Amino acid sequence: MNISDKVERLIRPEIRASHAYSVPEATGMVKLDAMENPYPWPSEVKQAWLETLREVQVNRYPDPDPGRLKQLLGEAMGAPPGTGLLLGNGSDELIQIVLLATARPDACVLAPVPTFVMYQVIANAVGMRFVGVPLGRDFVLDVPAMREALQHHKPAVTFIAYPNNPSGNLFAADAIEGLIAAAPGLVVIDEAYFAFTDASFIARLPDLDNLLVLRTLSKMGLAGLRLGFLLGAEAWLREFNKVRLPYNINSLTQASVELLLRKRDFMAKQIQHIRAERQRLFATLKSLPGVKPWPSETNFLLFRVPDARQVYDALFAAGVLVKNLDAADKTLEGCLRVTVGTPQENDVFLDALKRILTT
Amino acid sequence: MNISDKVERLIRPEIRASHAYSVPEATGMVKLDAMENPYPWPSEVKQAWLETLREVQVNRYPDPDPGRLKQLLGEAMGAPPGTGLLLGNGSDELIQIVLLATARPDACVLAPVPTFVMYQVIANAVGMRFVGVPLGRDFVLDVPAMREALQHHKPAVTFIAYPNNPSGNLFAADAIEGLIAAAPGLVVIDEAYFAFTDASFIARLPDLDNLLVLRTLSKMGLAGLRLGFLLGAEAWLREFNKVRLPYNINSLTQASVELLLRKRDFMAKQIQHIRAERQRLFATLKSLPGVKPWPSETNFLLFRVPDARQVYDALFAAGVLVKNLDAADKTLEGCLRVTVGTPQENDVFLDALKRILTT
Repeated sequence: MNISDKVERLIRPEIRASHAYSVPEATGMVKLDAMENPYPWPSEVKQAWLETLREVQVNRYPDPDPGRLKQLLGEAMGAPPGTGLLLGNGSDELIQIVLLATARPDACVLAPVPTFVMYQVIANAVGMRFVGVPLGRDFVLDVPAMREALQHHKPAVTFIAYPNNPSGNLFAADAIEGLIAAAPGLVVIDEAYFAFTDASFIARLPDLDNLLVLRTLSKMGLAGLRLGFLLGAEAWLREFNKVRLPYNINSLTQASVELLLRKRDFMAKQIQHIRAERQRLFATLKSLPGVKPWPSETNFLLFRVPDARQVYDALFAAGVLVKNLDAADKTLEGCLRVTVGTPQENDVFLDALKRILTT
Repeated sequence: MNISDKVERLIRPEIRASHAYSVPEATGMVKLDAMENPYPWPSEVKQAWLETLREVQVNRYPDPDPGRLKQLLGEAMGAPPGTGLLLGNGSDELIQIVLLATARPDACVLAPVPTFVMYQVIANAVGMRFVGVPLGRDFVLDVPAMREALQHHKPAVTFIAYPNNPSGNLFAADAIEGLIAAAPGLVVIDEAYFAFTDASFIARLPDLDNLLVLRTLSKMGLAGLRLGFLLGAEAWLREFNKVRLPYNINSLTQASVELLLRKRDFMAKQIQHIRAERQRLFATLKSLPGVKPWPSETNFLLFRVPDARQVYDALFAAGVLVKNLDAADKTLEGCLRVTVGTPQENDVFLDALKRILTT
């Protein structure tokens, strides 16, 4: 038997049928595709960080359950007393943990779509069926359709990105409250973009025992460290913790996050700049003929252009990398997504876009 | 419905029945429980490492597929040309990836036991049945029993730790070759302790298309970085890569490993010290009345004492942390496992042990 026959016999068909996540090469580009914070660190912070890393014992295993770091993180996030916290190698790993723990035969996963693609990718990887409920016009939650899907599919886990990616908007909080009450399973509110909005479900955790809140430090400025965290009742986290690989957060990330949380004022200032730039970018996009941007509570903007493929390619040729979502979902036809960069980066993007649209 | 009813309804019973991995508090102890390299880095290396980290853009996502790092790692490990390489957040994550990709209904996982516990823990987490085939006297492979189990259970994946943990020995290479030929599924040779032995199956990769070799940088001295890697045919790795979370190796680990592989001579010297100390520790343990150590090709020694619990507690009270395996498996009754430390640490351990055994 040759190796491709063996692969076919041993690897699950859903995996063979899927594709690996691919990321375009971005060297030398104005990189506005990945929702990264574009600002460097103050030199005082960088120095303190290196001094902290100097003391890390790289030869030893990381702390498998870093209590002080978790406490600091809970405080920084304003987690209500009594809320548990589980750390993940990015929020991706926490999505995987939650789904592995709940992947009974026939259990399914539900989310409004379009949304963060990893809910579906990871559901597929762990062998769970994924049910996507289309969002309405302008990406609002279709509440009757969501209620019906909850009743019909009885999902073990429902993911609601709040704000949503790639649309950038917040769904109505009272609609989400109603869905949490109606859900027969867990509801994970994914607050990856929490830094760029004032809305959050964290304060609701003590009252809603099927609610979990997922966050990450990536978008606020620490994407390279890979730290996600899940907040919720200990009764849930205790079970998820059994599925977590014991040394999932490496020593350098642990030490870095602890230091950077103590120094986080500089990131708060950067976030204020990003939020201000978001408004400028939105207003400018709105003023361009043929361009429709959607209001955003995140660090990116979704916008529609007459020909997304052509505009994407021309931006790429001009050295600006954005995300082309044209083919990702029917509702995203003609859509591109741009991350809010520095004022200079945003100008490069806007100038290129204006040139492209008028030639 | 209260929360514990919800937990019972939604969390898989195998998860609820399992326990989280627990690690004893080791602050201030002579830490000989976790197979860590005890030596610090030369200050020149530490300085070069910090200069490398200074340049890492922590605000950006890590490279999801770091080609240069993978090439360097393949070269450092002597991987045959054409061998593929997949990176994991420790080898734990790669075990999880291999099992997720092969977890068809009724697929099972096989390993000789006692062995590294994570094969069974992760099989359970992904919902696969685990079959353990008892090792024979002095922890040799029971080849007829392994052959029969392969035929009877037709495991999708067989794990063979080479050398084995916790016994420290190498199984006979020709016996393993025979099992690879007889296996209907994949055989993962786990070479976590490769640095401490001259034996390896890496050179066999081009000839055996159901063979995978798993390694980690943890035991050679980089446990805090969490970098494991899987070597094998691209036809397999392409599928596993679809299950891998895209940003599973953070930026600091990537930059650190690249630098430390270039500077790896210092670790090679440390490993020579550890191998020499292993022989001294073995000879001394063998000379103690009532103590039976087993020869080891790793950086730890398994040894039997008259009363493992009492000796473990007394060592702990003396400030020395080892691993008590007494209750882990019937064949490990009375057994403790000690990591080879520095000469000073080993002396503290040996002196305490001698005192304990003679009072």
